[in-house]
Amino acid sequence: MAKLPDLRMIADVSTGYNNIDLEECLRRGISVSYAASVTAEDVGEMAVALLLDVLRKTVVADRFVRQGRWPVERECRLLGSKLGGKRVGIVGLGSIGTEIAKRLEPFGCRISYTSRAAKASAPYTYVSNTGELASQSDILIICCALSEITYHLINRKVLLTLGKGGVVINVGRGSIIDEKALVKCLMDGEIAGAGLDVFEGEPVVPKELMEMDNVVLSPHRAMYSDESFSDVCEIVLSNLEAFFDNKPLISPVPVSS
Amino acid sequence: MAKLPDLRMIADVSTGYNNIDLEECLRRGISVSYAASVTAEDVGEMAVALLLDVLRKTVVADRFVRQGRWPVERECRLLGSKLGGKRVGIVGLGSIGTEIAKRLEPFGCRISYTSRAAKASAPYTYVSNTGELASQSDILIICCALSEITYHLINRKVLLTLGKGGVVINVGRGSIIDEKALVKCLMDGEIAGAGLDVFEGEPVVPKELMEMDNVVLSPHRAMYSDESFSDVCEIVLSNLEAFFDNKPLISPVPVSS
Repeated sequence: MAKLPDLRMIADVSTGYNNIDLEECLRRGISVSYAASVTAEDVGEMAVALLLDVLRKTVVADRFVRQGRWPVERECRLLGSKLGGKRVGIVGLGSIGTEIAKRLEPFGCRISYTSRAAKASAPYTYVSNTGELASQSDILIICCALSEITYHLINRKVLLTLGKGGVVINVGRGSIIDEKALVKCLMDGEIAGAGLDVFEGEPVVPKELMEMDNVVLSPHRAMYSDESFSDVCEIVLSNLEAFFDNKPLISPVPVSS
Repeated sequence: MAKLPDLRMIADVSTGYNNIDLEECLRRGISVSYAASVTAEDVGEMAVALLLDVLRKTVVADRFVRQGRWPVERECRLLGSKLGGKRVGIVGLGSIGTEIAKRLEPFGCRISYTSRAAKASAPYTYVSNTGELASQSDILIICCALSEITYHLINRKVLLTLGKGGVVINVGRGSIIDEKALVKCLMDGEIAGAGLDVFEGEPVVPKELMEMDNVVLSPHRAMYSDESFSDVCEIVLSNLEAFFDNKPLISPVPVSS
């Protein structure tokens, strides 16, 4: 910002704004808008896709067929698990978490969540902390914002609590999980699998993960679809228009209290 | 059967029974049970998994990351499509089709179906033939039984009607689709993609499909999960018990009228 002294507005195309120094923006009087929840449906879809892929092993199955192994081995021996009946713990029941929960209901999942506070309107079980949520869940889905509080929220202890049958899905930010601990738990069989759209040092992905059949890896693209691209363009334009018309921004970054 | 003159019962572990000569069974007085709809939820899950994989390109994305391309190319340029808002045509609204429809509702899909007859209890739009269904759909999901009527039901004409943006999912039987026509339509860009759990000459899969990024291939395993295995064992045992107790079978193969 020091290099752009006339900067008056930042219209972020992202749904997370952890990459912007909001305090400095406030000090300089720079307005900041973001894509808010316009891509929540896209991210919610991707979370479900990653979860189904990990459980039902579709990515491994596709690799099995393409390697020409089916006619030779006759059977793909990697038996998957059914999503139906699983206990799902959602970490962060914001717009994305809500879209995920809604989509998992007809699969017959039992849904709990943790969030800064219980949401009166949510028909799911509120659990006040992540450790307790892990102890009651087969699957943890991370879709909260990255903050000082959520940094490495999913640490070794939480993963061990989730346990050997447990699956972790991350469509939030890489650093919400202690990635080293996650890799070690996966290598030691302390949890069953993971579906990851985000990584601590992305675009670099720990090479141990690349060899694992029980993880599905995605290059931070949960929010991207043909459809969400137009939605994001639209909201950026609306925010710019509002700014130049001296009207309140359509989706300002929330000022932290 | 000629080699097993004392055969009195066949307890099929499958949900399809197109591999059994039912007329000959009837003639010989052989009872036939099958797994009926115990795996309908598993197959329904897999259909949704394959659909999300094709649209959101998760299998391609996983390959992209594992090939180490993310740090080099920075972005995975294959933009997927959002499932939300798509028009889905279900071919066969039996137990599997119903499980699929239920799961697609909260994604915001508009659901139509074709079946031998309209189902009064189904809250979806009934369309009397497959061609018309294709003309009104972005996605066709095949989950009917294979019969003389459904053999090559999805032919070149239906695929061309579905059109360039169209996606086909098959969790029924390979021969319900004219596979040669499907491969050609995919190669020529006449449809957008396919998610296939079954093939006409399985375990042999047309080699043209192996090279395509817009298809997801699965080795006929939609019904298989840890959970469905126990469910199938249970129903086979119940049928055998019923047979030896001279009681009606729990899930007899329906006698065709």
